[in-house]
Amino acid sequence: MKTIKIFDTTLRDGSQGAGISFSVEDKVKVALALDEFGISYIEGGWPGSNPKDVEFFSLMKNKLKNAKLVAFGATRKKNCKAKDDVSLQKIVSSGAKTAAIFGKSWDLHVKHALGTSNGENLDMISDTISFLKSKKLEVIYDAEHYFDGYIHNKKYALKTIKTAVNAGADYICLCETNGGVLPSYIDKIVKETIAEFPEVKFGIHAHNDCGCAVANSIIAVEAGCEMVQGTINGIGERCGNANLCSIIPSLQLKGKYHCVPVRNLKNITTLSRYIDEIANLVPNDSLPYVGRSAFAHKAGIHVSAIEKNPETYEHINPKHVGNKRTILVSDLSGKSNILSKAGELAIDLKKESGNLSKIIKAVKEKENDGYQYENADGSLFILTQKIENKYKDFFILKSYRVSVEKTADGTIVSEATVKLDVNGKEEHTVSEGEGPVNALDNCLRKALIKFYPEIKNILLTDFKVRVINSDANTAAKVRVLIETKDKKHSWGTIGVSENIIDACWQALSDSVEYKLLKK
Amino acid sequence: MKTIKIFDTTLRDGSQGAGISFSVEDKVKVALALDEFGISYIEGGWPGSNPKDVEFFSLMKNKLKNAKLVAFGATRKKNCKAKDDVSLQKIVSSGAKTAAIFGKSWDLHVKHALGTSNGENLDMISDTISFLKSKKLEVIYDAEHYFDGYIHNKKYALKTIKTAVNAGADYICLCETNGGVLPSYIDKIVKETIAEFPEVKFGIHAHNDCGCAVANSIIAVEAGCEMVQGTINGIGERCGNANLCSIIPSLQLKGKYHCVPVRNLKNITTLSRYIDEIANLVPNDSLPYVGRSAFAHKAGIHVSAIEKNPETYEHINPKHVGNKRTILVSDLSGKSNILSKAGELAIDLKKESGNLSKIIKAVKEKENDGYQYENADGSLFILTQKIENKYKDFFILKSYRVSVEKTADGTIVSEATVKLDVNGKEEHTVSEGEGPVNALDNCLRKALIKFYPEIKNILLTDFKVRVINSDANTAAKVRVLIETKDKKHSWGTIGVSENIIDACWQALSDSVEYKLLKK
Repeated sequence: MKTIKIFDTTLRDGSQGAGISFSVEDKVKVALALDEFGISYIEGGWPGSNPKDVEFFSLMKNKLKNAKLVAFGATRKKNCKAKDDVSLQKIVSSGAKTAAIFGKSWDLHVKHALGTSNGENLDMISDTISFLKSKKLEVIYDAEHYFDGYIHNKKYALKTIKTAVNAGADYICLCETNGGVLPSYIDKIVKETIAEFPEVKFGIHAHNDCGCAVANSIIAVEAGCEMVQGTINGIGERCGNANLCSIIPSLQLKGKYHCVPVRNLKNITTLSRYIDEIANLVPNDSLPYVGRSAFAHKAGIHVSAIEKNPETYEHINPKHVGNKRTILVSDLSGKSNILSKAGELAIDLKKESGNLSKIIKAVKEKENDGYQYENADGSLFILTQKIENKYKDFFILKSYRVSVEKTADGTIVSEATVKLDVNGKEEHTVSEGEGPVNALDNCLRKALIKFYPEIKNILLTDFKVRVINSDANTAAKVRVLIETKDKKHSWGTIGVSENIIDACWQALSDSVEYKLLKK
Repeated sequence: MKTIKIFDTTLRDGSQGAGISFSVEDKVKVALALDEFGISYIEGGWPGSNPKDVEFFSLMKNKLKNAKLVAFGATRKKNCKAKDDVSLQKIVSSGAKTAAIFGKSWDLHVKHALGTSNGENLDMISDTISFLKSKKLEVIYDAEHYFDGYIHNKKYALKTIKTAVNAGADYICLCETNGGVLPSYIDKIVKETIAEFPEVKFGIHAHNDCGCAVANSIIAVEAGCEMVQGTINGIGERCGNANLCSIIPSLQLKGKYHCVPVRNLKNITTLSRYIDEIANLVPNDSLPYVGRSAFAHKAGIHVSAIEKNPETYEHINPKHVGNKRTILVSDLSGKSNILSKAGELAIDLKKESGNLSKIIKAVKEKENDGYQYENADGSLFILTQKIENKYKDFFILKSYRVSVEKTADGTIVSEATVKLDVNGKEEHTVSEGEGPVNALDNCLRKALIKFYPEIKNILLTDFKVRVINSDANTAAKVRVLIETKDKKHSWGTIGVSENIIDACWQALSDSVEYKLLKK
């Protein structure tokens, strides 16, 4: 078991991804979650570049239980002393005990980005690291564009590393900044570099512009690197950084390396989804290990084999990473999928029942209309109960009306009315809401609560809208998915319509009906 | 230049991905696009498993100009002759000239999935391939779970390959079916296997369960494989298949291999988006080479370096793959980002102008409220014109009202009214629509067209809805992005509100205002 230091840069390099913007409060939440999970180094930001990061470091003083907080920065400016460089002073005053300093290892960058000489660049590296070491900081030297530099001017690239080592850097992190270097080069260059500096601790920092960031990081570890820099879910500029949620389980479950405390690995799926939530990103369902589809089986023959022996189509037990197996019901489904799903939903369905083929047919027809039951267990349950003749109408919609009105002073009023037949009694209610959907939700609950007090405890926890066939413009179909929970369970329901309000109505009424049917 | 045969399985393995369902018409469109792009082999489906695929093959007869159409299937059933196996007969009658047959190379599967003996499995492989060869088909033998098989029982795994070779298979494709094997094993096992069968042509088929499918495919090619199986955009079961849109450019631009006609490589971005459109998937912006963010730069220092020399932060010229550089405007933006974006939008902005910092400040404030200008050039343009005092009110909203009414018979009527002040004249219109947003769009145009006839030629081409802070349930904020085009240009506009109707109103009115401002 070799220990690999995991260095998370979600808050620094990750925040350079398109569509990502962390507030200071977000950054604190992310750092605490990473610390809890057992990450070794958390790069919090660049105190020299913006006031938000200065505030973050001041809020984080003495907050971390396990991890080291890292302040990021560049080598000092040209023609100045490191001790006079304001950005470097901010790293020292940030309170972080570790600094990650990027410097140029590719002579093309020295010329075009810095506009200085190769010699002056070496001085900048040396002076910066010596200054930070004199302030008792641990220093990680990020050799930016190291691999491109090595390919174009090996001698100079190695000289930058030697300079950083001589100045006292604790780690040298080899950065594949542009993400364009293929795995075989990574293997070769890491091995050759480590051979030059056998006493030095090396790290790898990879980007995903060829789709190889995870593999390149693993290959670098196998070639001798002891630190991996990456981000949760691989967020980051352009195609993203190396995804730590793929690298950590692969190294720890398959490679026999130690990255995070063994008992914490099962929390990685929760961590992944939490970071997406804070970053306000739609989770990528197909992410390795942590995605919702990572252990989802759809093809009929896979499902039947899995039921005999999970190892047939699962490379690890999903529990090890806190994920779970799901069986998808779709038009590729065979009987195994429907039966397995029925088991999950506690539907008592017989293999020999004629209803089984009716259910498969109904699902396929609905999917043709744009429905998808993969995340709508609640609506699927209602569908099966209807075919099994176990369905009961708890209420019948007579009519609804939803209106949104904006006046000249900018006030907006959203109002919904609903007329229901509940067990033969007409119920007609009106409510306002924050928007039309919220008004409709409030109104439906208001109408039903005296008949079915149990709906008081259900809570909408997620609401998603997806335009399907979006080339039909504002007349396109809309798919609405709602996630609801009570004290014990959660369930998804779906609505599809050319009218967004009606799609919401379908999902809202399914959500309530599921609760009542399950009672 | 070594030629690598690209084998696309988007229509077969790809369709096993969560949320993917191709109609027969979709499949035909996909196959024609792949053929046009220059893919060597197109796996169309499994005629033995469903009637949709039978219909597909019958529609595809003599349709392909360059590619070979491939029918997929399994080795024959136990205890039967290959010539009597109905599924194999359907491959022969499909009209495809190439068959891809998967068989078991991992003894665990022979036992648990097939429930037969190791000897019978070898007979099944041999009999199946001999039968198809006797029908003059080219046969690709897909050695399912080859790598897991090799790791657990090397002797038997090699024996299955020997059996397939002896029966006349034209290619042996080594399948990493469960996606759990790390790159160093792929390299070793491919090399050892090829050394055993130096005369045989090998392929690689990788899955992405460790995030290494692309790297594993490239490594296998470098180790001697001559065929790569994968899918467009990496769609496929669980974490997906190897992404051909990453592999093809890497091999062809960096590896000096020949995969598709050189002149076609620049069409790969268009192909990627077209397949997403048909599969009804939201494109993943961070996909290598083809994603919208693949060449997007956000950090201020990257943007200023890129302007001096693109090679500083771009691993290839985006034009080679038909993609383009974009500069993102966000709260990480420096002056370089805003100036570069201004240039793109033909906004005349001076570097020394005080307005530049005002614009940066305004963008940051708006982003705090949930706006994002990365895909909303139109709204950003309006914002800059307001700050530059070049903005003119073409119309002022006095009020709108939108209502959706559903009656007991299921009829839904969506109606919108809009009251505008246009150059001092009050204009009050009403329209119906397919839904509330469509009604509002119709109504706004109806009110404006006599004043501004040029809006007749603008067309809404895309409409996206995203719930932000979705844990606030139906009271969450909604972000609406609209894409509009006229005969020459297209532009994006944005609206954010807790009220979905008002978010749509903002994006719709920005869309029209942009057109009028640009006149």
